[in-house]
Order: sequence, then C-alpha cells, then structure tokens
Amino acid sequence: MRRCKFCGKESYIMLRSPRMALCEEHFVRYFERKVERVIKRHKMFPESAKILIALSGGKDAIAAAIALKNLGYEYECLHINLGIPGYSEESEEVVKKQCEIVGGKLHVVRLKELVGEGIGERKRGRQPCSYCGMTKRYLMNKFAVDNGFDVVVTGHNLDDETAFLLGNLIHWNVDYLGRQGPYLPKGLKLAARAKPLYELTNYEIRKYVDLFNVPVVESKCPFSRGAKSILYAKVLDEIESESPGTKINFVKGCLKNRNLFERDEEIELKECRVCGMPTVGDVCSFCRFWNLGEGVDLRVR
Amino acid sequence: MRRCKFCGKESYIMLRSPRMALCEEHFVRYFERKVERVIKRHKMFPESAKILIALSGGKDAIAAAIALKNLGYEYECLHINLGIPGYSEESEEVVKKQCEIVGGKLHVVRLKELVGEGIGERKRGRQPCSYCGMTKRYLMNKFAVDNGFDVVVTGHNLDDETAFLLGNLIHWNVDYLGRQGPYLPKGLKLAARAKPLYELTNYEIRKYVDLFNVPVVESKCPFSRGAKSILYAKVLDEIESESPGTKINFVKGCLKNRNLFERDEEIELKECRVCGMPTVGDVCSFCRFWNLGEGVDLRVR
Repeated sequence: MRRCKFCGKESYIMLRSPRMALCEEHFVRYFERKVERVIKRHKMFPESAKILIALSGGKDAIAAAIALKNLGYEYECLHINLGIPGYSEESEEVVKKQCEIVGGKLHVVRLKELVGEGIGERKRGRQPCSYCGMTKRYLMNKFAVDNGFDVVVTGHNLDDETAFLLGNLIHWNVDYLGRQGPYLPKGLKLAARAKPLYELTNYEIRKYVDLFNVPVVESKCPFSRGAKSILYAKVLDEIESESPGTKINFVKGCLKNRNLFERDEEIELKECRVCGMPTVGDVCSFCRFWNLGEGVDLRVR
Repeated sequence: MRRCKFCGKESYIMLRSPRMALCEEHFVRYFERKVERVIKRHKMFPESAKILIALSGGKDAIAAAIALKNLGYEYECLHINLGIPGYSEESEEVVKKQCEIVGGKLHVVRLKELVGEGIGERKRGRQPCSYCGMTKRYLMNKFAVDNGFDVVVTGHNLDDETAFLLGNLIHWNVDYLGRQGPYLPKGLKLAARAKPLYELTNYEIRKYVDLFNVPVVESKCPFSRGAKSILYAKVLDEIESESPGTKINFVKGCLKNRNLFERDEEIELKECRVCGMPTVGDVCSFCRFWNLGEGVDLRVR
C-alpha cells in the first residue's frame, strides 16, 4: 500500500508529475492550492469581482465550483441548455442537483427558447461542434454582460488545453495560438474569461469530484464522436505516460512563447447591428448563424 | 485487386494522401517527380553544383541517391563510420555494396581514426544521440568544404521531419524551429544542406528502394532505443492514419510560418581556434567535445 507523502496515511491518489502519493485530505489541499495559485498568478479575480461559473453538468465545471467555494469565493452559476435531444435534458437535471448540493444560485438559459432550435437539430452544412462552441461562448458572455458579471469561469483543464493546442499547432492555426491561455481580460461588453483548472488533469479532477458526492453527466455529447480533439488528447496521453510532465510544460511553454503568435495590429471591434455585442463584421456570428432579427435578452428579472 | 490509377495495371502501392493506387512504373515516376519538385521549389541545386550525398546505410539516403541518379544528377557519396561496435562495421559494408550497385564514388570517414574513439564508447555524461548528431553534421560539412562540394544531401524524410518538429513544438525549442526546413543555403565554410525526400514517407521510401535490389541496414542503432523521436513518430502515425495528409500539411504549415520563429539578430560566427570552421564560441562543439588539439583534415588526396 502506498502512503501519503505528507502524513503517511493510506494514499488516495498516485500522481506522476510531480511524482507523489497523497491521502484524501492532502490531495484536496494540493488540488485547491493549485487552483488558487493559477488564479493568483494570472490575476483572474480581483477581490470585488462578480463571478459566473458556467456549468455543463460535467465533472470539470463542478470541480471548479467546489474548489472556488472551498477557497472562499462567491459566485453564481449558469447552465446553457443546448437543446440536444436526450443529452441536454439529462445535463440540465444533473446541473440542478449539483447546485443543490454545492450551493450557488443557478441560472438556466435554453437555446431552443431563444432561437427556436437546438444544436444539431437541423442539417446546416457545418459540424455541430463548430457552431456549438461559438454559441456557448456568445451566450456565456451575453449573460455575464447583461447581468453585470465581471468574469466567466469555465472548467477547461490541462487535457483540454493541450489537445486544443496540439491541434492548432499541427494545423498551424496561428491566430488561435495567440489567443490561447488561462485568462482573457475584460473588454468593452466582454466579460473576462478564466480557466482555474488550467493546470489540472482529467484524472485529478475526476478523483477530486469523487470526494464530494455530486452527480456528473457521464454520457458523452452525441456529436463528440470522432472529434479530432479526442485523437489529440489520446496521443498526448501516450506521450505523457512515457514522459510525465510533458503536458504541463507544453502549455507553460506556449504561454511563455505566446508573443510569437500575437499580431501587431489590434483587431477593431464594432457593434453587431442586431444585438449590439462586439463583432469584427457587421452582424456577429451568433445573430448571423441563428438568423436573428433582434438580439437575445438574457437579463434576469 | 487494386489497379493503377494511370494505366490500370496491377497496383504496387496504395497511397492514402493523395489517395491512389499505383503500379511499379507509375509509382517510380510519382516518387521521382516529387523529389524533383522539392529540389526545384527550394532551389536546392544550381546546374553546376557539386553534390555530396551522405549515405548511412539505411533506406533513406540510398533512395535519395537512386532518385537523383535517375533524375540525371551527378554526385559523390560520403559514409561516416561512427565506430559503434557491431553496427558501424555492418553499415560500412552495406554502403559499399550500395555504391557498387548504384554507382557514385564513395568516400569513407572513420570517426575512430580521427578522434581515437567511436560514438558511445566511453561514458561521457551525455546521451550518445546528442553528440552523434553534432559529430555527423560537423564531419559532413567539413568533408564537403575540404573537398569543394557545394551541397550535402541527406535522406531526411517526412516522418523524420514531422517527429522532429512535433518534439520541438511540444518542448518549445523555438530556436530550432526557425532553422527547420528542407534546405539551408551555403555560407562561409558551410556547404548547403538539402533534404530532397522531405515530402516522402518511410513507407513510400521503403517501397521505392525495394524495387532496386539494393541492400539496406536493417538493424537499428543500439542507442536509438527509447529515443523520444520514435514516440513522436508513433503518435504522428496514429494521427496520420485517422487524418491522411496531416503530416505533409504539418511541415508545409511550418515552412509557411517559419518567420514567426526567426530571430531578428543574426548570429555572428567566428572561426574555431582549433580547426578554423565557423562557430559561435571560441572553439567549435566538435573540437571541444572530442578534445582536439588540431583540426581534422578530410582532404582527399
């Protein structure tokens, strides 16, 4: 039996980078300290920030919520029901139970009520994943802006970020690389975006959430099958398993070298003619894609 | 039975990117055209260039030699005997046979005769691979410069290059990325370096060489076991197999974006105090590592 590096009690988890066994108590401490260090290092939340956590129903976002709560932060939660038959109903139910257990006021935004249809309901000549990401980012930000939140917290973790990074490097999506990172600051009508689980792995998050008896959505989104990001995550797991520490050094190296990919010119943002939100074109991608005649109003009454 | 895309004869190889079956004759034509296109696109050999091909004994360099010969180029060959017990004797024997079959005057340089020991013979606190690469590059260049060759051709292929690239990206070896590429031009006491197989895979090269009845060294270098580049090549194979074309787009994207990694300042090269070859320091890595009192003389008499 392995024993905790700090107290010698029976270990709960064996980490490989840094290599150590930890008991439940010291693992929770390790996990939350790591979250706090990421928050402080990237100056994610000023003292007075009004925080919104985006809960999908999965393990990651609820882990972020639990860790922030244990670290003394206050927040409200947002769930976006994407209208994916079967999957989205289950997700909304799970999120409601998560919030009952963990606390935190929950807001629910339902895509179908806003634009008349859900993700993937109609063939649109584009992969659902491509416009789902855009839709979620828009709605999270719009909800935050409409209701005075300063920052949107998401559950993106080290495995997500490295897979995304690898995909963008292999395809040389240079524009994305400059915007990659754990924190994007606030702008005009743009809430800040923060990923406090940026340095934690799927495995660590799973083991952390297991300790708190909260339900999580176990089924995968029906559209995620065959997504390239899954392939990239798989090969990164192989590399990590032969060279523990590769993933964390990969994202840290990216942050250090991000200036290589930053453009000199600032992109000028205009107001979307339909909803008034920032956009590079005339109408923003959300209003254009969903063919809206007027902007969605997400103010909580 | 699959049939050749061009002539309908029985196919010899099935390519996946671009997807097509080819007979022996059309495969050879495809292969050599690809080599020629790479040579022309990167302006590797001016009409009058004196070409030196570095033959290791493996399939890649001899494939380059056969293709160049069939394309009408003239060249001489260099084999560097690295003094790795067992492996290097076999390699030298194979290279001699290759040259008898293919033609091309062969020069052999033996590391042990020059510096008194072979690669990996003594524990030196550094992995053999790290100083072997430096040693080979030095000797190829010194031989070329001492004997008036303009360009050194090596057998680096698409699989080598993408593995190297992935490793350097994952570890953010930014300096290497700016120098990565199929062609490095000539400089003062620096022969140009060219990789005409840059866009061809291990599989294509293997099938090409199989058609010419030349022996190749089949055993692997005893020091290559566990090399990280093998791991990177393996995961790239997985990605390529799910998304054919990834590798070629990966290197082409790198070339297109190489300027991102190039430094503004030019590195000033001095003459090595021992051998007179270009170096950034006082003594070049070769003379320093092998602890030489005078430079090696590779002039052919």
